[in-house]
Amino acid sequence: MSTLPEFSDVLAAAARIAPHATATPVLRSRSLDALAGCELHFKAEPLQRAGSFKFRGACNAVWALDEQEAARGVVTHSSGNHGGALALAARTRGIDCHVVVPEGAVEAKLAGIRAYGATLHRCEATIEARDAACARVQAETGANLIHPYTHPLVMAGQGTAAMELLASGNGDGFDAVLVPVGGGGLASGTCVAVAARSPRTRVVLAEPAGAAETAASLKAGRRITDFTPDTICDGLRGAMGAPNFELLSAHAPEVIVVEDIDTIAAMRLLWQRLKLVVEPSSAIAFAAVLARPDAFAGQRVGLILSGGNVDLGGLPALFAAGEAASG
Amino acid sequence: MSTLPEFSDVLAAAARIAPHATATPVLRSRSLDALAGCELHFKAEPLQRAGSFKFRGACNAVWALDEQEAARGVVTHSSGNHGGALALAARTRGIDCHVVVPEGAVEAKLAGIRAYGATLHRCEATIEARDAACARVQAETGANLIHPYTHPLVMAGQGTAAMELLASGNGDGFDAVLVPVGGGGLASGTCVAVAARSPRTRVVLAEPAGAAETAASLKAGRRITDFTPDTICDGLRGAMGAPNFELLSAHAPEVIVVEDIDTIAAMRLLWQRLKLVVEPSSAIAFAAVLARPDAFAGQRVGLILSGGNVDLGGLPALFAAGEAASG
Repeated sequence: MSTLPEFSDVLAAAARIAPHATATPVLRSRSLDALAGCELHFKAEPLQRAGSFKFRGACNAVWALDEQEAARGVVTHSSGNHGGALALAARTRGIDCHVVVPEGAVEAKLAGIRAYGATLHRCEATIEARDAACARVQAETGANLIHPYTHPLVMAGQGTAAMELLASGNGDGFDAVLVPVGGGGLASGTCVAVAARSPRTRVVLAEPAGAAETAASLKAGRRITDFTPDTICDGLRGAMGAPNFELLSAHAPEVIVVEDIDTIAAMRLLWQRLKLVVEPSSAIAFAAVLARPDAFAGQRVGLILSGGNVDLGGLPALFAAGEAASG
Repeated sequence: MSTLPEFSDVLAAAARIAPHATATPVLRSRSLDALAGCELHFKAEPLQRAGSFKFRGACNAVWALDEQEAARGVVTHSSGNHGGALALAARTRGIDCHVVVPEGAVEAKLAGIRAYGATLHRCEATIEARDAACARVQAETGANLIHPYTHPLVMAGQGTAAMELLASGNGDGFDAVLVPVGGGGLASGTCVAVAARSPRTRVVLAEPAGAAETAASLKAGRRITDFTPDTICDGLRGAMGAPNFELLSAHAPEVIVVEDIDTIAAMRLLWQRLKLVVEPSSAIAFAAVLARPDAFAGQRVGLILSGGNVDLGGLPALFAAGEAASG
């Protein structure tokens, strides 16, 4: 495989992870359809193992290692979902896993990493500290670095969610598929899968206004990395990876930039109507549809709800505040 | 049909509601299996239309009316889920629906009733006021009374959830099926379905300690109705119906009485691990398993998670309090 995944890599990933990953259901809600003015198909990745789509890419990367590589274990840095996913993937193969976690990560995600038996390495919330910690673990253990979104096998694995979503459509096909974008792993895998399997379908990325460097980068034609993220979407704070930028530039998906307040409202609706616990980084895709009704009116729209790992003690205060504000 | 449903009525209900109801998924969680020490299969009725299993019984009753009866509409009293379910069922048939709601009902449930186009009649929270309001609507409109749990077609409809759960087992069968018990509609339908389809499977009812009159009634051999409910499980506060008592006495299911604090802890686990928004009246079934590990150790256990209609602004405070208490 080159540094960029191709469709054959997505197909190989689907076969490789099938014994381990959950084929998550696609949920519908007539009331949300009516609200949005289009036909919504929600791919429910909170129901994936370890609570997010990240298990797909992590599992693909772990099971693609040869025996000798696998014996040395894996290491990654992650603010949460990829760390938990890699920890669980490593456990399915019985190998060691190290996760470097910056300060400020969501507690529910740390608990997942620990529960799956990985070794946690805390570090300061800077890219330098994170990379240094990863390098140290690699030097000490020989562990394979499984980057959360630039690794081609991770991108290929993430593409399997879109494959399943497209296959759920009973042949009618989708007008658009929406996914959140942070580092760009899910966006990349989705672009590759959709372009090959359903070229007429638009891929639309949803990005928080407080970390909208993907929209800016694609517009500028160069990768912008000098920004300070400020968003409730803790999974979407990182800068897009270099290979992700290259791949996304070629596919040129539309990007919708969403304000956090709209993401919170969308999250509330998904909890209330879909009865699914989704994290802000997931709800943003639905918020994008609600923010741009004209772009999707009457269309058949697939959304990948990416994960559901939230701190129940913290987020609900937002709901309560939102409820008070909306009367 | 007599006043008690038979298995043929459950089969007829399954056929009658199939065009309207959702065949909800059965969810699994390895981490919850490990925690409970048994194999858990969660029938996810929060994903049912109108957010609870109640749609099954309401839909069955509405579509069993002949044209002349249907033209007069339907009326019921309900503190929430049955009201919303009947409102939606009536809408699927294009007929009028009246719901008498006592003061103190959960706002999320009232919103559902209104959203589905039913006429809401508020009354005081006494049985006398409720029955008087229902009688008044019946006298004025000729509407058919669809009682939330004593109506035999409602009981038969509720039995379809257990039918689907049993069918999901790939022929291996369940050692036990757990359902919450309040008025006894779901419990009755489940007993009828399980006895006919899988006689070796135990039916176990979960009942809140603050409204444990089913356990007391079955033990005493007479229906106890003089109690003041005090439980967070707003769907389980009512006294068991007379026909429900008759049917349950014949089937003699085990009853596990659960404290609210354990139900809240179980609800939190289901939100966190299963990523499903469940209401307290649903989580109690899982709490019953956790409260009595010896009774289910190593077994294959089905649980009907009955609904997910909660006020997001209110319940989360409980989670936060629970989180603080548990460190």
